[in-house]
Amino acid sequence: MCMHDEAAPHYIDMIDQTTLGHRFIKREFNITPRIGWQIDPFGHSAVQAYLLSAEVGFDSLFFARIDYQDRAKRKDQKSLEVVWRGSKSLGSSSQIFAGAFPENYEPPSNFYYEVNDDSPIVQDNMELFDYNVPQRVNEFVAAAFSQANITRTNHVMWTMGTDFKYQYAHTWFRQMDKFIHYVNQDGRVNALYSTPSIYTDAKYATNEAWPLKTDDYFPYADRINAYWTGYFTSRPALKGYVRTMSGYYLAARQLEFLKGRSKAGPNTDYLADALALAQHHDAVSGTSKQHVANDYAKRLSIGYEEAAKVVETSLTSITRSSSKTDSGNKVTKFQQCLLLNISYCPSSEVDLSNGKNLVVVVYNPLGWKREDIIRIPVIDETVIVKDHRGNEIESQIVPLLNASLAIRNYHSMAYLGKFPSVTPKYWLAFSASAPPLGLNTYFISSGKQKAIAAPSKNQVVYSSKEKQKDVIEVGPGDLKLVFSAKQRKLIGYINSRTKVKETVRQSYSFYTGATDIKQASGAYIFRPNGTNSLKPDHQALTVLRGPILDEVHQRINSWIYQITRVYKGKEHAEFEFIVGPIPISDGIGKEVVTKILTHMKTSKTFYTDSSCRDFLERIRNYRKDWNLDVNQPVAGNYYPINLGMYVKDDDKELSVLVDRSMGGASIKDGELELMLHRRLLHDDGRGVAETLNETVCVQNKCSGLTIVGKYYLRIDPLGEAAKWRRSFGQEIYSPFLLAFTQQEGDGWTNSHVSSFSGMDPSYVLPDNVAMITLQELDNGQVLLRLAHLYEVGEDKDLSVMASVQLKKVFAHKKINKVTEMSLSANQGRVEMEKKRLVWKVKGSPEEVPKVVRGGPVDPAALVVELAPMEIRTFVIDFN
Amino acid sequence: MCMHDEAAPHYIDMIDQTTLGHRFIKREFNITPRIGWQIDPFGHSAVQAYLLSAEVGFDSLFFARIDYQDRAKRKDQKSLEVVWRGSKSLGSSSQIFAGAFPENYEPPSNFYYEVNDDSPIVQDNMELFDYNVPQRVNEFVAAAFSQANITRTNHVMWTMGTDFKYQYAHTWFRQMDKFIHYVNQDGRVNALYSTPSIYTDAKYATNEAWPLKTDDYFPYADRINAYWTGYFTSRPALKGYVRTMSGYYLAARQLEFLKGRSKAGPNTDYLADALALAQHHDAVSGTSKQHVANDYAKRLSIGYEEAAKVVETSLTSITRSSSKTDSGNKVTKFQQCLLLNISYCPSSEVDLSNGKNLVVVVYNPLGWKREDIIRIPVIDETVIVKDHRGNEIESQIVPLLNASLAIRNYHSMAYLGKFPSVTPKYWLAFSASAPPLGLNTYFISSGKQKAIAAPSKNQVVYSSKEKQKDVIEVGPGDLKLVFSAKQRKLIGYINSRTKVKETVRQSYSFYTGATDIKQASGAYIFRPNGTNSLKPDHQALTVLRGPILDEVHQRINSWIYQITRVYKGKEHAEFEFIVGPIPISDGIGKEVVTKILTHMKTSKTFYTDSSCRDFLERIRNYRKDWNLDVNQPVAGNYYPINLGMYVKDDDKELSVLVDRSMGGASIKDGELELMLHRRLLHDDGRGVAETLNETVCVQNKCSGLTIVGKYYLRIDPLGEAAKWRRSFGQEIYSPFLLAFTQQEGDGWTNSHVSSFSGMDPSYVLPDNVAMITLQELDNGQVLLRLAHLYEVGEDKDLSVMASVQLKKVFAHKKINKVTEMSLSANQGRVEMEKKRLVWKVKGSPEEVPKVVRGGPVDPAALVVELAPMEIRTFVIDFN
Repeated sequence: MCMHDEAAPHYIDMIDQTTLGHRFIKREFNITPRIGWQIDPFGHSAVQAYLLSAEVGFDSLFFARIDYQDRAKRKDQKSLEVVWRGSKSLGSSSQIFAGAFPENYEPPSNFYYEVNDDSPIVQDNMELFDYNVPQRVNEFVAAAFSQANITRTNHVMWTMGTDFKYQYAHTWFRQMDKFIHYVNQDGRVNALYSTPSIYTDAKYATNEAWPLKTDDYFPYADRINAYWTGYFTSRPALKGYVRTMSGYYLAARQLEFLKGRSKAGPNTDYLADALALAQHHDAVSGTSKQHVANDYAKRLSIGYEEAAKVVETSLTSITRSSSKTDSGNKVTKFQQCLLLNISYCPSSEVDLSNGKNLVVVVYNPLGWKREDIIRIPVIDETVIVKDHRGNEIESQIVPLLNASLAIRNYHSMAYLGKFPSVTPKYWLAFSASAPPLGLNTYFISSGKQKAIAAPSKNQVVYSSKEKQKDVIEVGPGDLKLVFSAKQRKLIGYINSRTKVKETVRQSYSFYTGATDIKQASGAYIFRPNGTNSLKPDHQALTVLRGPILDEVHQRINSWIYQITRVYKGKEHAEFEFIVGPIPISDGIGKEVVTKILTHMKTSKTFYTDSSCRDFLERIRNYRKDWNLDVNQPVAGNYYPINLGMYVKDDDKELSVLVDRSMGGASIKDGELELMLHRRLLHDDGRGVAETLNETVCVQNKCSGLTIVGKYYLRIDPLGEAAKWRRSFGQEIYSPFLLAFTQQEGDGWTNSHVSSFSGMDPSYVLPDNVAMITLQELDNGQVLLRLAHLYEVGEDKDLSVMASVQLKKVFAHKKINKVTEMSLSANQGRVEMEKKRLVWKVKGSPEEVPKVVRGGPVDPAALVVELAPMEIRTFVIDFN
Repeated sequence: MCMHDEAAPHYIDMIDQTTLGHRFIKREFNITPRIGWQIDPFGHSAVQAYLLSAEVGFDSLFFARIDYQDRAKRKDQKSLEVVWRGSKSLGSSSQIFAGAFPENYEPPSNFYYEVNDDSPIVQDNMELFDYNVPQRVNEFVAAAFSQANITRTNHVMWTMGTDFKYQYAHTWFRQMDKFIHYVNQDGRVNALYSTPSIYTDAKYATNEAWPLKTDDYFPYADRINAYWTGYFTSRPALKGYVRTMSGYYLAARQLEFLKGRSKAGPNTDYLADALALAQHHDAVSGTSKQHVANDYAKRLSIGYEEAAKVVETSLTSITRSSSKTDSGNKVTKFQQCLLLNISYCPSSEVDLSNGKNLVVVVYNPLGWKREDIIRIPVIDETVIVKDHRGNEIESQIVPLLNASLAIRNYHSMAYLGKFPSVTPKYWLAFSASAPPLGLNTYFISSGKQKAIAAPSKNQVVYSSKEKQKDVIEVGPGDLKLVFSAKQRKLIGYINSRTKVKETVRQSYSFYTGATDIKQASGAYIFRPNGTNSLKPDHQALTVLRGPILDEVHQRINSWIYQITRVYKGKEHAEFEFIVGPIPISDGIGKEVVTKILTHMKTSKTFYTDSSCRDFLERIRNYRKDWNLDVNQPVAGNYYPINLGMYVKDDDKELSVLVDRSMGGASIKDGELELMLHRRLLHDDGRGVAETLNETVCVQNKCSGLTIVGKYYLRIDPLGEAAKWRRSFGQEIYSPFLLAFTQQEGDGWTNSHVSSFSGMDPSYVLPDNVAMITLQELDNGQVLLRLAHLYEVGEDKDLSVMASVQLKKVFAHKKINKVTEMSLSANQGRVEMEKKRLVWKVKGSPEEVPKVVRGGPVDPAALVVELAPMEIRTFVIDFN
């Protein structure tokens, strides 16, 4: 549906949008695309190469933007065109012929023919003063030879056009017709109208062996001091919204399938379209103009509204018990709370003193059983929580402090046009569980007395001036975070279970964006001009403790606030950051980062994910493909972070996971940093022609955008970290979906299904497999995608072949037929593999270990094997 | 062939280019245009309205650019649309319905649909966010009502486009289709694709009576301080070149006719095309970019080269006597000297000491007998001149002074790439005569002794410091110019025949062009920012006297030089000005004017010609059509001067005639001024996007362009001046055409026709009639145009009906059929008059005196009557 970005999107979004597009093309034109054409995205991901190219059945992939130093070397070595193996795990089974153009996606210089361009036309009327056929033919041939000199084989491709061209195609074709005519008459080269497909076949026919390329093409610089690594973070709110909607869309499709897709009623199609569009390389990338960004958000919002109806009616349908008929005449109406990020949930902010129950349905989109802490705002501290068996369960009341209330009030005014009618004073936290693709129900009601964890008792303010012990340990479970009251900051991490203990400091700082007229920092480009550490404010740390979680509130300064949470039973720390409005009254744009500082010896090496999938090794100030000339020691070491990043030393791994895409780096050994927010006052001259200066307005008074987000940190013994990164990564992407309703009295469980699993109740997916698509198509078939979550060698237990029993997954239905498809589900997998061109690699390196993939699915057994990193796509017909 | 300018072109050029275009349209499409569409020219001339509109058979004329104050008043009074009578003499017989658009030639604001325009498209897909049909329909209707409120009748016209639009027409038509559909569905207005022709018919059908407009629409200001009166002078060299070529083209066509048009050989068609193109409102107007101006000149040059061949072969043919066969085997080769303006004529700069004769053929393109002074450069002072009867005639040798030689050398280097091989030291002057459309031959040979008027004797240098008499009288005939040696300038004018005696001073000054960023002086706009008088240099006056002419050489400063000439037998003074390079090293652009200052009481009134035809009364700081708010007391009183201008008092008329179009004014009573040259350093923001800074380059070293030109001054008793203005005006336009060859010995007259008249030798055209076209068309028919040169009441003797006897004009041929045509010769006159719409004028003012026109041509008598200002066009078939 679009030419998606390759830095900021989640691979599931890339697959979903490509599937939408490929199936559209198949349906409307009966065409299966063969070529990937990613000419504009600002760097290219490994996942694009192996998943979105090889696995959709493409024979080649073309693009334009690679690092200028890389490009220079590749021109010199004739290696702009390569065979690219994007995945270590899948190796040659997912490789693709990939070509970078010699000069962006431009025609040769002086061959531009848009209406107002000034390249000389081919004047072939000899009567006219500007007759120039011989000259123009010579220039054409010279341009062809020049490109031939940096290209293997006799074939070169010209991209005859660029951005915003062909508004009047005739001006181009008229000249190209003439060039082709006269150049072929000349005979030194043969020119023809071609396509990437024709070109690919011509290259393939030469039987040439091509250089091998692994990893990816990040980061991208188009010239000195011009690293396009700012956009990894640009528009963090939009990035967060896209990620939230992506997870929601996955869950909503499950629920749509579970209920049965409605042709007439609301469905998830609008959200699908909006999400597809939002993956565009100027959408989630954060590089559109403000009014375009608003449009993307608006479409997501409309899509969400419609998907929410699907979710609510599906939950109504699932929870309506056919055997329990006493409430058959009353349809339950569920409500959801998308605005929990601003602590706003009208459905839970209700008065329960009259004896009503607040019914909370907790849906788990994961294929595993799961337990997680739920936090919802409530207006009363005397509430209790019961499970669907009627047992009261442990809960905790946490005060809703001013920082959160200010955000709630300001943003509800800005976006809803009014202040909320009530002001909740508390968060209610409790631990909920739910079966795979299933739900459980919880009931919140007014308690007789104050909860055990009465907030007033457990709130301690640590001021550096008072005589208190300096070291504060925080965490109700095995994980303790250590804070210094004097320094007012995190200083240590101790896990008593794993015995991991590490000095960990965490801080905020900002880079000042360069305003150099030759190259400013902007929407695309990160060009720091100095860094400023932010010492935490002299305001005291506030620690809130309880049986389920502890919170540490830190005011870093007037525009950065942080809440650190440690949960019982969780071995990671959660950092909720509130950044903004970034001040600009000093006329200086700022790019805010958080840093994690340890004493780990990380040897310049860190690891970042490729579009939430494979982790790639990054070495500071180094590129595998060329001798890097370092001119931007910070910006040139930034990489896109979608899932997370980690470092390791001899005995530990420190991992950070994120809730949205952003830029990250390890600029010094033992350190990690994430760029959280950017506000800049100059355009960087790459096309958006606006400053990246996001604001929120109330009654025409605008202030800088505030970002609320989370990242998660955990330190594991070496070799044991992947499990958390992969499985908790799935939990971040697919949080519990909550739906609320109210019920008089305690009759809910009698009249409703209050616990449900979409699969066989005894079955869960293997720990190394995720169900990344479950969707009823509009023809009634069901699209299923299963993804192995681990790379070869990533985990000693889980980097192995996994099996999924489809009969158990679809325990409630009868499978008639299962057809394995290409990743984008526009052709059968077998057919696709048959057509695939097999490219030769220079030197034919042997692959060790040999690539393994899951075997064919036996139609009787219906067991799907998945090798490490394998994703398999099926269309299933049910009876 | 183009939308010609209306300020700078000669009416003959306007007629020629329109004829070329109209006949092309007739031939290719069999269409006779009905509507004039002069949307862009920067002001509109009376001649355009009555000659190039009414007399070509148009039913209406539309244009855009009228003074902003005029427009405001006309909008208020609903008088943008008028009946325009451009000629006092021809009145209602040559009127036209004429409409000015309300806002330039733009669509209504917010209805622009070029590819990159940002007017909202009509979004009629109700599913999309930007659905806006009701809003856009309302805006359309509002725009229509708004225009209806300033327009008579129910019909309004929108110009849906503007400069540089419709590069991709689809973007416009797609939106207009939708507007027409939805607006008509709405029903408040009826919208349709229309044409000026449909619109004209709709207006006519209303039977409305329209306000009367006379005179013209000059000068044009589009806003305060923005008078488009600079372009009257911009690019004076191009303007001079166009005028010279225009006269040459007229003569060349005569000679082409006299010899018989050659289909295969050279003809005058290329010059016709080049001249037609050069009339464009950004060509001769001086408002094109430099490289475009170069192209216009190049085409003129190519056209001239080809026309020169026609002239030379025609003269060869005419002078070859069929009865005198002795030289029948030797074809005479004639040469011409286009570069006499830089004193360069290789054909005359020849060594005659070996006894050779220089043969000079003098062709007279006028329909009258004529005598004129010929001046050619020669290398020897001992030459004599004989007429074709062998009699030596009076001649004069005038030294070629340094100022002229410097120009000769610099420009031959610049444009011919070399210095001339010889350096002539003298001008040879003699008086030549020739019959109407005929030639005489003169012979120049080496004389035995020095000419009587030996230059050394007659050259007197008057220095103000020396003890000399201060008053210097100059002039070999009745006219004496009086100079002051002390003041080094002209101070008086005395005609002993007419007894006219007047204090006349003449001076130079320059305006400094405004550089105000809001409105600078530029190619279009004259916005003076102060004036600077130039006192003549302290260098002495040099006076050269002789029997035929006296010359006064004045160096005004290092970049202005003037030669004043008074000829025996001529009662006007000739001023040759050499202006340039205008210095700009002070960073200031300059606009150079010459002023004539007298004590005449001229009551703010002066007269300027309309495209060389009718003279219009101009009153300083006053407009007949509205109360002028004067904001530019100089620029706002400038008018285009093509033929000349004059002032008068109770007993005298002072007339100035020019050799090319330029701007002129009378800023104070008794004064006239002409703007001769402009060099400016700022663009005036009207589209040319270049500064008007013309240069001439030698070996890549460029200096400002120097202009050499002439203007002529004469003072007559009141009421007696028109004769000179009209008849000498014809002589300026059609100078003697000179051709040179060499002959051994004196045998020329025996072997050649040395005197010839194209008409009956006893016949000349009446003094009030000029033959403005004599041209063999490519179908063998002959196009003849005769023009009465006087307006009603202009001259007591000549403002009367004139008669031309075609049989005598074509004495050498037999006329078969004469068909009177429209002015542009694309339809029969009778048929044209039949179709003409007769517009009603508000108040139906009676015309006094009643308009008279010549009657039909009797096919037997073949006498053409011409009423004052009448031009009649005929196609003649000969047997």
